[in-house]
Amino acid sequence: MPSARSDVEPFRAMDVLARANELEAAGRSILHMEVGQPGAPVPREASEAAAAALATGRLGYTEARGLPVLRGAIRTHYRATYGVDVADARIVATTGSSAGFNLAFLAAFDPGDRVAIAAPGYPAYRNILRALGLVPVEIETGADTRYALTPELLEAAHREAPLKGVLVASPANPTGTMMTPEALKALVDACETMDIWFISDEIYHGLVFAGQQETALAFTEKAIIINSFSKYYCMTGWRIGWMILPEALVRPVERIAQSLYISPPELSQRAAAAVFGATQELERVKAGYARNRELLLQRMPALGFTEILPMDGAFYLYASVRPFSNDSAEFARRMLEEAGIAATPGADFDPVNGHAYMRFSFAGDASVIEAATERLADWLPRAG
Amino acid sequence: MPSARSDVEPFRAMDVLARANELEAAGRSILHMEVGQPGAPVPREASEAAAAALATGRLGYTEARGLPVLRGAIRTHYRATYGVDVADARIVATTGSSAGFNLAFLAAFDPGDRVAIAAPGYPAYRNILRALGLVPVEIETGADTRYALTPELLEAAHREAPLKGVLVASPANPTGTMMTPEALKALVDACETMDIWFISDEIYHGLVFAGQQETALAFTEKAIIINSFSKYYCMTGWRIGWMILPEALVRPVERIAQSLYISPPELSQRAAAAVFGATQELERVKAGYARNRELLLQRMPALGFTEILPMDGAFYLYASVRPFSNDSAEFARRMLEEAGIAATPGADFDPVNGHAYMRFSFAGDASVIEAATERLADWLPRAG
Repeated sequence: MPSARSDVEPFRAMDVLARANELEAAGRSILHMEVGQPGAPVPREASEAAAAALATGRLGYTEARGLPVLRGAIRTHYRATYGVDVADARIVATTGSSAGFNLAFLAAFDPGDRVAIAAPGYPAYRNILRALGLVPVEIETGADTRYALTPELLEAAHREAPLKGVLVASPANPTGTMMTPEALKALVDACETMDIWFISDEIYHGLVFAGQQETALAFTEKAIIINSFSKYYCMTGWRIGWMILPEALVRPVERIAQSLYISPPELSQRAAAAVFGATQELERVKAGYARNRELLLQRMPALGFTEILPMDGAFYLYASVRPFSNDSAEFARRMLEEAGIAATPGADFDPVNGHAYMRFSFAGDASVIEAATERLADWLPRAG
Repeated sequence: MPSARSDVEPFRAMDVLARANELEAAGRSILHMEVGQPGAPVPREASEAAAAALATGRLGYTEARGLPVLRGAIRTHYRATYGVDVADARIVATTGSSAGFNLAFLAAFDPGDRVAIAAPGYPAYRNILRALGLVPVEIETGADTRYALTPELLEAAHREAPLKGVLVASPANPTGTMMTPEALKALVDACETMDIWFISDEIYHGLVFAGQQETALAFTEKAIIINSFSKYYCMTGWRIGWMILPEALVRPVERIAQSLYISPPELSQRAAAAVFGATQELERVKAGYARNRELLLQRMPALGFTEILPMDGAFYLYASVRPFSNDSAEFARRMLEEAGIAATPGADFDPVNGHAYMRFSFAGDASVIEAATERLADWLPRAG
């Protein structure tokens, strides 16, 4: 018998990906909008660094916290991007933000602890928390708070039963919503008052189309920051990210990482250390997302998607499919099989209202987005 | 405050590695024998496959279970190496065997479950089990069973309090001991009788110098097999491995992997799919280990290491340092600082007797092993 705790929800986006790849292997044309994955290749600087490392043939375990050259590049990035000084000792390279979440949860929480997250939100938060014996406290957010957690929502959940921490993403997946620096600071302050951990998922930083991004580090040294090279830096398949930790968690995280990951992949570390130099190329990629976003904002309402969430940042359109269906899982299945468009049903992100929503990633090539709107125009009339 | 469960032991080998790298960066000559890492570069076939994948620039998330091309190559490997047929559906590529252990433990066990492991043994077993709220039941083994678990030892532990599973490595780290196919089968059978999970760590397969390796799959479809491209295949830094699962665990493992890892690094998957073709190069590397092993077996006793464990397989020499010290942590520290030899204190592997043992990896170049014995000859007289 499998364990009880392995009975977590699937990450439906990955199930859709697996099915989409099957159809593609069988010769079907599939438009991929199911996973948050840049259509652009890895930047030249990173690719060249990887090729150079590969040519040496010497790739091995690194320090569990990552190579000094990568951690130094991350320190420089914080100085340049946010004007924030971070000691190297607080920087830990991770095997993607996936490892960052796992390490943060293991280092900060014990079985039974309650951790608040927003719904709609990234499903892996909930699934990892559950697998680790923690209790995700999903707080439904709506248009009234622009789908963001507020100190009031958090305090209400804390009164019901004490929280041990909260995880916040800004820009958020799938809603695209951004918190203002002031709103972020208010939430950080509320956590300090409640004496709970503040985990800041900043993996969509750099991908902001409306509003202003700020790192939680600007307000506190007690937050756990999680970031990744997957999104802005176009390095999904490399599985490389980082954390900035409060002093007290550095050694606990390092100890767990030693046994649970040994070290992040060395080739990915070397490529990532070089990718901070690829700003010009990355800004061109981002300009492409901005055009995709405009196209969707222009066409999707006309196609009947009348309720679309903010789209301040990240590269997702999260929209109600109520005009067509009240069962987005079935809607997603048919859209993939019949129209060859892979996208993710809302149940991944929101157990309460997700059945009526879909997430479309617009991180692909313009041609994909263009073709998707055309196929939708053709298919939607038959979808109901 | 960090969580209680983050209070796991450090993986001392990784701490030694971090310190050794610091000393090296400061200009010291360090002989690395602390981590189980081949000195040889990644085989040409794998390197070329990686370069080709890199040149496409298209690296992304794959199916959570791994690319079909890699899973197919693994199936072929089982047919060719063991004469065993494995359905593709039971094969899961993982982010190193580290991910394999984590996924196996999460999918098979719930908090509080007791899992038997041998001591001396690989420390990450114990540390991951603890971090996940499981109870490692460390069974001390000795020369009487050649440091292997037996049905009798297992049944005795099961009588004390019911076990939920056992994890066995053959060849084993750090002891180097091999179980005969008959002994392995007896243990598998005992687990079926007790109705507990059998997890077979086969990551040192291919590195056998005395005795005969067999996969637990030859005896049962109910075992969880964990393997890796790090050791025989010389791909440590790539973080890529695999599992063969019993039918009942396939979907639970896939669900957890989707959220916890998304997918293994794509470049590593492509390189790994090609590395099975590198047998000639890998057998040359293995012949080098065999020479290192002979050299150590010849010189170490003369240097005063009079108690050395089996060395049937893997690439470790695990030896008592009682002739020099009863505190192997301090012995390791001084050997690194004074003689520039990095090796791992036994406390990593055995909480009871490890204080009197050290593990030396002989996976490095012959020149490293040669130089280490010379430095030891010079330093040991001053070590006491």
